[in-house]
Amino acid sequence: MLQAYFDRGMNGTAVFEFFVRKLPEERNFLVAAGLEQALDYLEEARFSDEELEWLRNCGRFHPAFVDSLADWRFSGAVDAMPEGTPFFANEPILRVVAPLREAQLVESRLINLLHFQTLVASKAVRCVFAARGRRLVDFGLRRSHGAEAALLSARASYLAGFDGTSTVLAGLRWGIPLYGTMAHSFIQAHDTELQAFEHFARSHPAGATLLLDTYDTEAAASKLVGLAHRLAGEGVIIRAVRLDSGDLAAHARRVRLIFDEGDLANLAIFASGNLDEFAIHDLVSAAAPIDGFGVGTRMNVAADAPYLDCAYKLQEYDGQPRRKRSEGKATWPGRKQVWRRYDDEGRMAGDTLTVVEDGTQAGEPLLLPIMADGKRVGAIPTLDAARDYAIRQFEALPAALRHLVPAPPYPVTVAPALQALARATGEAG
Amino acid sequence: MLQAYFDRGMNGTAVFEFFVRKLPEERNFLVAAGLEQALDYLEEARFSDEELEWLRNCGRFHPAFVDSLADWRFSGAVDAMPEGTPFFANEPILRVVAPLREAQLVESRLINLLHFQTLVASKAVRCVFAARGRRLVDFGLRRSHGAEAALLSARASYLAGFDGTSTVLAGLRWGIPLYGTMAHSFIQAHDTELQAFEHFARSHPAGATLLLDTYDTEAAASKLVGLAHRLAGEGVIIRAVRLDSGDLAAHARRVRLIFDEGDLANLAIFASGNLDEFAIHDLVSAAAPIDGFGVGTRMNVAADAPYLDCAYKLQEYDGQPRRKRSEGKATWPGRKQVWRRYDDEGRMAGDTLTVVEDGTQAGEPLLLPIMADGKRVGAIPTLDAARDYAIRQFEALPAALRHLVPAPPYPVTVAPALQALARATGEAG
Repeated sequence: MLQAYFDRGMNGTAVFEFFVRKLPEERNFLVAAGLEQALDYLEEARFSDEELEWLRNCGRFHPAFVDSLADWRFSGAVDAMPEGTPFFANEPILRVVAPLREAQLVESRLINLLHFQTLVASKAVRCVFAARGRRLVDFGLRRSHGAEAALLSARASYLAGFDGTSTVLAGLRWGIPLYGTMAHSFIQAHDTELQAFEHFARSHPAGATLLLDTYDTEAAASKLVGLAHRLAGEGVIIRAVRLDSGDLAAHARRVRLIFDEGDLANLAIFASGNLDEFAIHDLVSAAAPIDGFGVGTRMNVAADAPYLDCAYKLQEYDGQPRRKRSEGKATWPGRKQVWRRYDDEGRMAGDTLTVVEDGTQAGEPLLLPIMADGKRVGAIPTLDAARDYAIRQFEALPAALRHLVPAPPYPVTVAPALQALARATGEAG
Repeated sequence: MLQAYFDRGMNGTAVFEFFVRKLPEERNFLVAAGLEQALDYLEEARFSDEELEWLRNCGRFHPAFVDSLADWRFSGAVDAMPEGTPFFANEPILRVVAPLREAQLVESRLINLLHFQTLVASKAVRCVFAARGRRLVDFGLRRSHGAEAALLSARASYLAGFDGTSTVLAGLRWGIPLYGTMAHSFIQAHDTELQAFEHFARSHPAGATLLLDTYDTEAAASKLVGLAHRLAGEGVIIRAVRLDSGDLAAHARRVRLIFDEGDLANLAIFASGNLDEFAIHDLVSAAAPIDGFGVGTRMNVAADAPYLDCAYKLQEYDGQPRRKRSEGKATWPGRKQVWRRYDDEGRMAGDTLTVVEDGTQAGEPLLLPIMADGKRVGAIPTLDAARDYAIRQFEALPAALRHLVPAPPYPVTVAPALQALARATGEAG
């Protein structure tokens, strides 16, 4: 496509917007995420010498076109919803205004980055609701779809309110709090379970978390009581245990009783193993004495809805609004803004989708300028600041949207100005 | 865990195996994949100076331990099933024999790499069966879970029999054939659809693929007839069209008729849009005149089964078999081999899981030595050679396993020698 544009000298100003066409049935709202990585990409995208050489020799492209890519840079403007903003179907969360060839070239990676973190944050926030304040840690590195997915899902889940991750690189990269426990192999590599517990605890004197279920959970808990007291006398603290199999509620109750009767009321119980928001909800509702959850695979791959029906579509070219009219995939044309209204208690009351020129809307505009001339404008929020913002946003959600079951749709109306533009653009086709 | 092992000087020989505990209900078999990237990782894994510095300063580790990581290298041995081998629950597809701390450190990334490509190849092969020889192209970059997932799913789907990908980097990296078409935005950026078709075709004179459904599919097809003949007179060939929305079978029939009546019998029809093996099966069964399929999201994220219940477990330490006995997660101990038997027609007839020392088994051993002392042994198959091997393997599958619906389980038996070892290891716990 770029070569065809190049051949014709087509490079007018293009407006693309990223949005989700339809929410999965399993989601009452989505959480905008991935903007930080999208902006990094737009600022840093270049063709390497190796890539240019390959393009030159692959037999598909004219030399002059490949030469033009050598100093390719993204020089456009971006408006976007801040990370952590709840959003709904057809609401753009990011708008690119740039020369056509630049705006087009970045399409696939922009979608790839915005889609994935939005997907994970929108799943993770449901776990946060279900956990009702209990600790949540991302455990999903191993079954994430590749290394980047693991790293970005640590970030997206933290943004949505998780407390930390076991993916160490996410600590190095973003300062996300790190949590770890032992694996079963650590226990198995020792001749006895108790010896494994003692070795691990002595290497983590400030507070180890020990895995109880390698052989027999309650037997392990009973063995641990004496060890915990003995080590405490030497200043070695065992902070928590982890349960990873079987009936977690039943094991947690029996282990809690063993610890309480053993005068270890402060020894916390952590649970993991195929957890998602529904399993957490059940455990919390049953008042299982579990202090925190390790949530892996099902959150990291958004197992019940592992993709979003998202798109990055041309809405205006060279000053003219554009509209795709494919069956079931028609778009709203033009540059758009989302206005959000709140009720007297500060709860979200309804959104309006309209053209940016529409000065008639009340409420708060959600898309804000974030990049101009290919560079970020204004201060970059830290991940912790974005997380604080997200948590405040979630508090403003209508109560029904915070439930795990499907809620009545949140009201999103299309303003008359946009409807008129769509009709006009439709007729022009 | 590594620090605790370091503190105790524990670094005996450990044997870990990677396997899937249980197949998803949606799969009759799995396809081993990702070995090449796993071996690359084992050969190249190092701690960077930046990482060592961060580990030194994060407050969690002893300086002597962090120092020991500076020259950390994987020096172990690996046996594995060749990529493209069909396998079943509890069959190890990779065995690591290495000093404990090396074998442990690589766990998360090894799982991450083997899990994902196995996941995608096992989904993609179902599309290959459904397509019955029609062309299949990976279109999934945008909704893959990150950039690495996009790249590796292009590889895994090609391994499983796809014809190519639209992810250009996969062409550069592995020589995977590249296929591309235009996006709707290309049409929309032009004032008329016909002008867009002509521009794109002239920039791809050897054979363009044009997208028909931006406004009205059949109207676009009719407009194309005259253009195709006119351009053919100038040596510019339009090779194919793509349908991306609506009732693909109905559109394909109408478009085929328009082309055939327009003396364009060689103009191929390509279809895309939320396709998976079931949609492809329906289109092929309905004899829709579609010559090839672009398959994206649902294949790339394995939407109906987006993760596998896989594990990398310690099976032997310091010469002693080990067995995890957690509820629902008990493992078979020791170093194991899978023997596969074939019937007279060369079809797979049954597997036996046993200890490597068991000399009583008939058939073909599936786990082969692939790495010794941290280096690959023998020639590395090219991706095309691995793909040829995979396709031959799929031809040997029992017919029922090639169906999209659940088949009766393939017979995998546990040999008496392994059962005896499990009993003995169980008692030792």
